[in-house]
Amino acid sequence: MPIFLNSSDPDFESRFAAFLTTKREDSPEVDDVVRDIIANVRTRGDAAVLELTSKFDRMELTADQILFSETEIKAECAKVNETDRTALELAAERIRAYHARQLPQDESWTDETGATLGWRWGAVDSAGLYVPGGLASYPSSVLMNAIPAKVAGVKNLTITVPTPNGIVNPLVILAAQLSGVDNIARIGGAQAIAALAYGTDTITPVDKITGPGNAFVAAAKRRVFGKVGIDMIAGPSEILVIADKDNDPDWIAVDLLSQAEHDESAQSILITDDAAFGQAVSEAVDKRLETLERREIAAPSWHDYGAVIVVRDLDEAAALSDRVAPEHLELCVDDPDALAEKINHAGAIFLGRFTPEAIGDYIGGPNHVLPTARSARFSSGLSVLDFMKRTTLSKMSPAALKAIGPAAVTLATSESLEAHGLSVALRLKQLNSD
Amino acid sequence: MPIFLNSSDPDFESRFAAFLTTKREDSPEVDDVVRDIIANVRTRGDAAVLELTSKFDRMELTADQILFSETEIKAECAKVNETDRTALELAAERIRAYHARQLPQDESWTDETGATLGWRWGAVDSAGLYVPGGLASYPSSVLMNAIPAKVAGVKNLTITVPTPNGIVNPLVILAAQLSGVDNIARIGGAQAIAALAYGTDTITPVDKITGPGNAFVAAAKRRVFGKVGIDMIAGPSEILVIADKDNDPDWIAVDLLSQAEHDESAQSILITDDAAFGQAVSEAVDKRLETLERREIAAPSWHDYGAVIVVRDLDEAAALSDRVAPEHLELCVDDPDALAEKINHAGAIFLGRFTPEAIGDYIGGPNHVLPTARSARFSSGLSVLDFMKRTTLSKMSPAALKAIGPAAVTLATSESLEAHGLSVALRLKQLNSD
Repeated sequence: MPIFLNSSDPDFESRFAAFLTTKREDSPEVDDVVRDIIANVRTRGDAAVLELTSKFDRMELTADQILFSETEIKAECAKVNETDRTALELAAERIRAYHARQLPQDESWTDETGATLGWRWGAVDSAGLYVPGGLASYPSSVLMNAIPAKVAGVKNLTITVPTPNGIVNPLVILAAQLSGVDNIARIGGAQAIAALAYGTDTITPVDKITGPGNAFVAAAKRRVFGKVGIDMIAGPSEILVIADKDNDPDWIAVDLLSQAEHDESAQSILITDDAAFGQAVSEAVDKRLETLERREIAAPSWHDYGAVIVVRDLDEAAALSDRVAPEHLELCVDDPDALAEKINHAGAIFLGRFTPEAIGDYIGGPNHVLPTARSARFSSGLSVLDFMKRTTLSKMSPAALKAIGPAAVTLATSESLEAHGLSVALRLKQLNSD
Repeated sequence: MPIFLNSSDPDFESRFAAFLTTKREDSPEVDDVVRDIIANVRTRGDAAVLELTSKFDRMELTADQILFSETEIKAECAKVNETDRTALELAAERIRAYHARQLPQDESWTDETGATLGWRWGAVDSAGLYVPGGLASYPSSVLMNAIPAKVAGVKNLTITVPTPNGIVNPLVILAAQLSGVDNIARIGGAQAIAALAYGTDTITPVDKITGPGNAFVAAAKRRVFGKVGIDMIAGPSEILVIADKDNDPDWIAVDLLSQAEHDESAQSILITDDAAFGQAVSEAVDKRLETLERREIAAPSWHDYGAVIVVRDLDEAAALSDRVAPEHLELCVDDPDALAEKINHAGAIFLGRFTPEAIGDYIGGPNHVLPTARSARFSSGLSVLDFMKRTTLSKMSPAALKAIGPAAVTLATSESLEAHGLSVALRLKQLNSD
């Protein structure tokens, strides 16, 4: 059974605090294995990748089969039916339009001393996107990772997608094509991350790696962080729905289940100001779980980690939601904009009764790669900025250096950094003698 | 001796490539020690912090002495002389003015389907700044970390600064005061990072940790990443100077030494289109090294990792610089703006003959916390954005859901995510029956 909490109960605070710290994910001790895999790929390149692919994906490949050929890509794309293709094209178009607005501005100004200051944004040269294989091989994730990279201006974009037993998802290949991906490699696991970070004869090394993956992939990303940039360490998905009694309980039930069906460790939380409505949603969830295709995933998620929390009013709902800092937040209330104003921490907010979270997974436009495990307190969903970096610019005129240089000399001296001070003082000396 | 390379030499490419991959930093195996320290602090809180502070900093404290008191802060600030205070105030003011321009814009728009989309930025609630103690206890680093956090709107800002043997740098305390820091803790090492990440009775847990530190601090930051946000794993400092023959060789020599004096592992590189000028700078460096206060640090840095590279022209200089992706880049040439246009990868660019890098360390305005070890290829210097996060917003009108919802149902079906599809389909069903 999911947990039922009522903010009016005397033990609410302790129970809610305990709920917040519930550990949802096993952290298997994969770190040693991953370290060895990375060292192996770093030393032996393609040979190591091929061995590991044989071992983990049961695929016997040669080096020249690691990348999909043009012909193979065309053949896979041709397998996609017209309805799926049209839907994927609409999604790509809307995601592109949203992310194009994220392109940041360069700035330059001259201050009162004559110093010209500013910054300039540029794209990373190359990026690698990890796409899981098998059950979680989602074409939508390809669009959500690849399109921001291409909007940012990444020139060389490689995706790695394992094809265990040779099974390829044609929609993943089509999504890569629609996004402008440059290379598709049929490899996965920590070996794919190592190949992207260090390069092999076949895989060009990249500057940034993004995309979801299992515990091995996450551990590998953590290990190569620094050598390359990474996006974030993704945890299981979460949804928090704030709903008043004027919703159809069945709608809210399927919204909750839309995260629960992702993963047994996913978490779905309802906060409502009406206890009877909370009960009705719980019953609707149970009913849907009788027939849901992925009930063997969704039921344990809901029973082990689900929650129905009854609060006095929507202000209290907002405050509790901020403590959860959910990845996805639905506001199914009369005035969702007013309620959204009270929220500080959430990866994505879906406003109103006609914005189920699944719209954001596919077609709304905003990114569906979002901070999990309370990290919305300090991080953001994937964006164009993740594929760009900023260079700061400074240019002193002689007058500017005369105005602010002496303070730099003072501070350098106080930090016992003589050469720092000299680099300014020598120039000031000439300016003052001119 | 520093390495001398000439791009016209037949073996240049192989020697330059080898130079790029020279490992400058030992990675001592500190990870096990750090894991134990974090576990200890997480379990035992202040008691563990006090024991570790006694052990590493030779300071016997009680829990109520971990934080500097108001009285202690005032007393330290009063020790700073007027010249230093005025310089620090000017630096704070200029850094604040620069970073205030980084505050990002919220966006909201309604597209042709009636979907309202956008995003909203907010500050992290609390942040912790690590400030090294001893030799590298720099007040300028306090300003550079704390001011962006406060400009972003961070409400609770804690700095940790170890005071080995009880030695406090009054300028560090004053810099914290000028930046609006809320708490100052006299602790350091991995135990400080653990206390910031997990909290103790004395230290409020934070959402984001920034600031430089030694190998233990870096390993601890890597370990708590995910539980909290971190800025970056900083490596030894670097400068690359592109200079033509019309510079005073001594000016360029002290510019190179201003990074070399930071750390034996720091790296200083000159690229010039004039071999005789390169030789003159090398001789000027040697001369300065005879008397420089920190010559015992700067000399090994220059001799082990320094480089003078002679190129055919400035275009070639820009291309080689991009391969280094330096933390700091000086363009000491006639038309630095034109040359800057050719640069893609650098943490900060200092343009012209009157902009020594040290100006940026203290007083220019841009941040001096910058990407090292070639990570300017994919990351940026510290900014206000590091203390903010973005929440995406989506609101479907009934018309918008009717327009784009069917494609979401198609894609959910193709990914075998039934509840995702249902959450849209149930709403579409009602809209279509209205």
